[in-house]
Amino acid sequence: MHIDLLACTALYCNVSTYIKGVGTILTDQLITLFEEIVGKENVQTSSVHRLAYSYDATAQFQAMPDAVLSPRNTKEVSEIVRLCQSKKIPIVPRGSGTNLAAGTVPSSGGIVLLFKHMNSILELDEENLTVTVQPGVITKDLIEYVEQFDLFYPPDPSSMKISTIGGNINENSGGLRGLKYGVTRDYVCGLEVVLANGDIIRTGGKLAKDVAGYDLTSLFVGSEGTLGIITEAILSLIPRPVYKETMLAFYDSLEQAAETVSSIIANKIIPATLEFMDQATLEVIEEFAKIGLPTDVEAVLLIEQDGKEESVKREMEQIEQICRENYARNVSVAKDEKEAEELKTARRAALSALARKTPTTILEDATVPRSKIAEMVRAIRRIATKYNVTICTFGHAGDGNLHPTCLTDVRNMEEIERVEQAFAEIFQAAIELGGTITGEHGVGEMKAPYLEWKLGKEGIEVMKKIKDALDPTHIFNPGKVFAKSAKKRVVVSGGSDSTRAKDPSGI
Amino acid sequence: MHIDLLACTALYCNVSTYIKGVGTILTDQLITLFEEIVGKENVQTSSVHRLAYSYDATAQFQAMPDAVLSPRNTKEVSEIVRLCQSKKIPIVPRGSGTNLAAGTVPSSGGIVLLFKHMNSILELDEENLTVTVQPGVITKDLIEYVEQFDLFYPPDPSSMKISTIGGNINENSGGLRGLKYGVTRDYVCGLEVVLANGDIIRTGGKLAKDVAGYDLTSLFVGSEGTLGIITEAILSLIPRPVYKETMLAFYDSLEQAAETVSSIIANKIIPATLEFMDQATLEVIEEFAKIGLPTDVEAVLLIEQDGKEESVKREMEQIEQICRENYARNVSVAKDEKEAEELKTARRAALSALARKTPTTILEDATVPRSKIAEMVRAIRRIATKYNVTICTFGHAGDGNLHPTCLTDVRNMEEIERVEQAFAEIFQAAIELGGTITGEHGVGEMKAPYLEWKLGKEGIEVMKKIKDALDPTHIFNPGKVFAKSAKKRVVVSGGSDSTRAKDPSGI
Repeated sequence: MHIDLLACTALYCNVSTYIKGVGTILTDQLITLFEEIVGKENVQTSSVHRLAYSYDATAQFQAMPDAVLSPRNTKEVSEIVRLCQSKKIPIVPRGSGTNLAAGTVPSSGGIVLLFKHMNSILELDEENLTVTVQPGVITKDLIEYVEQFDLFYPPDPSSMKISTIGGNINENSGGLRGLKYGVTRDYVCGLEVVLANGDIIRTGGKLAKDVAGYDLTSLFVGSEGTLGIITEAILSLIPRPVYKETMLAFYDSLEQAAETVSSIIANKIIPATLEFMDQATLEVIEEFAKIGLPTDVEAVLLIEQDGKEESVKREMEQIEQICRENYARNVSVAKDEKEAEELKTARRAALSALARKTPTTILEDATVPRSKIAEMVRAIRRIATKYNVTICTFGHAGDGNLHPTCLTDVRNMEEIERVEQAFAEIFQAAIELGGTITGEHGVGEMKAPYLEWKLGKEGIEVMKKIKDALDPTHIFNPGKVFAKSAKKRVVVSGGSDSTRAKDPSGI
Repeated sequence: MHIDLLACTALYCNVSTYIKGVGTILTDQLITLFEEIVGKENVQTSSVHRLAYSYDATAQFQAMPDAVLSPRNTKEVSEIVRLCQSKKIPIVPRGSGTNLAAGTVPSSGGIVLLFKHMNSILELDEENLTVTVQPGVITKDLIEYVEQFDLFYPPDPSSMKISTIGGNINENSGGLRGLKYGVTRDYVCGLEVVLANGDIIRTGGKLAKDVAGYDLTSLFVGSEGTLGIITEAILSLIPRPVYKETMLAFYDSLEQAAETVSSIIANKIIPATLEFMDQATLEVIEEFAKIGLPTDVEAVLLIEQDGKEESVKREMEQIEQICRENYARNVSVAKDEKEAEELKTARRAALSALARKTPTTILEDATVPRSKIAEMVRAIRRIATKYNVTICTFGHAGDGNLHPTCLTDVRNMEEIERVEQAFAEIFQAAIELGGTITGEHGVGEMKAPYLEWKLGKEGIEVMKKIKDALDPTHIFNPGKVFAKSAKKRVVVSGGSDSTRAKDPSGI
């Protein structure tokens, strides 16, 4: 089902421009060797299979793998890596392909590695509050599993119904609850990783404190499959909040919504969720979900707090007052859990809803310090007007993580060029506000040319040294994170801010 | 004052055995060049100054630096690094020297870098809940500064009165509040770092979410000065808890105290502090602090909860009941903040109190999953008896981070040998229980030979590759973290557990 959905998107891609790796580099002899490792049924080389794994959820990127392998355990992963290393065959680990930065497109061909057989929850340890999982576990299944034991795994990317934990770890996925609870990295306390030479290491453990050596766990989390293949993870859990309340606040002005966000935090309240949607997004969501949202407002905030009942009630009253002080036209509290769930589900469906409107949807995740939300939203609107493109904006206002989303059509090359220019300018605006080019989607192939804007040449150089040290032949997910050449920055707003990447001391 | 205290300890060291680097490698010409960078008054080469920085708080380790430099800004640090790089001169960054793993001893001579001029709190950002600091800021000063704004910086190493934030970041320091609030790494969201080639990079930012590239911030945190020199940090803050309560529970049996710890967590309560002290520690603390602690019990738990008043009150009632169910002989709640502070200060003074008893105190921090606390305490007692050495145990029971502390005398070579054997066996016991050789003190020079027990050869190899990539000439804090040779493990308890480091898949 999900493959089909993505396949539809891919059809709109300008395949002839972007498809790569169509000439197979695998000999029959090599395929036999792979079959000996994982079993004949777990090696797929047909065109249909290869096509199905030639793209992810990112528009405009596609490349054919040479084979799709489904190992059954860590030992098999290690053997695959050793064989690939000996022949310099690229390996792209892949979860459910919900990636939005072309992080799982096999840009240089080679092997796509699936974890459909390595999808077990291995152990729940209630004394140490950890759960040990294989990479193929679906995020939502894990969340629901631990909730049965009154435990809580907070990271909740919008794709959590189909995304896998392995994919989340590789991308350091965020979600709606990031503001209060952090992101995936904050919950990974140990990993099993297959290295480029086939060695298997274990990092961390069921430990609240561990300073024995460099933090390899955090290094592998978010490394987008470019440093090693993650084959097992120990995740930390927290007690499940016993009570929650959800509220919507509607605004006639974007600025007032943004001011509310700042004001809530300045009042030392950290809501579990603090989501923002602009009018365009709201209209589309209402059309899609039909839950009675008003569509004549300029912005809406979706606010959830969780915790002990009395604390939540008191804080939600404070939040309601702050919303009103900031000129919310209307504030409505969900009357029960069902209504609250409907609201959150509608918010999570924003991408799907927008995707119905035009052939191509490009969802970005420029992120700024939360104090800069209003400025960033204004910048996005200005840029959209300048390039005459349609951009809806929603996202995690509480952590400054916005999702400007462009409704377009990849077949319209002239428009796509304007879209690309607009996004380049949006990334630049985010950087100038002290932000980053990606808050939770990753760099992948798509944002690699922009990475230098955030890290500077010197920062990229440090990353390259680490990549070369751990994967000297670049067999792990080649073409991702590191670009052949950086995009040139255009000085838009002038002033010293725009030279930031060149002069790191001036940030 | 603090230097004097450490100097006294150092006097007991077998200096002739351990002192290194006494022959200076600095020519007059080089000293002049350093003076040109930082100013004449910030270059110290006298014997007195060099002796003062030849050791830290770790017994048995001492080595003379060739010069002590106090740069005034990042640019000067960068220039020092470039000069040292050109001449292959070691650089050891140093906070207040409270390190307990010989992490700041200049083992190969060279330059000790002090941050006494780089000790400013640069900015408090109330909207983004961050504070930007230089490395020389004293931890407690920072904590008290942000508390004025009702904000909270949780990491509270016991040495926080004199330790610096720079030292805390290099060591990824923990503390009493680690169970609920995490450790230093959890609060570092951005760094300015001088690299081995003198380049200056900035990692992270005031961002709740940022996946632009590898997590260099987490890599530098806890790298013990071996990868770069940290010159500035952005720390994230949280709202200050409005209310707290502190309680002591006394036990006639170690096991019952340990069972209480497990039981509190199993009841989904995460206290802010959950400290353990054995009878020996309690006696010494009472003798030192005279606050009326009973000394005829086998163990005591110091428990603090913070948060909203009503939640705290309810949880403390639950905790009290859990203590009683686990046969606490007596449970007493501190009647006010003053009494609570007295108790915590007494606990923090454990090391100082123990240090008064014998010429040498060796404080360790073997750490286990919290479910293994009782087993670990038993193992420590068994090992102390086996080697006929005096070991008191206290520590952060809630996060499995114990501090077995040996009262000894470095002049007694025969006893010291037994002490070393005992600690080696304690580290091994921790590893066998799924733990680590160091929870919060770091590896330094002292624990380097044991690191392979935790990480395996393959894990060490990954770290070495990163070290070589970022500091190819090893000018940054040489001799730390990486040992010339690993200690051989002795199979003590038999069984498959003890082969763990050799077979990472068997953890």
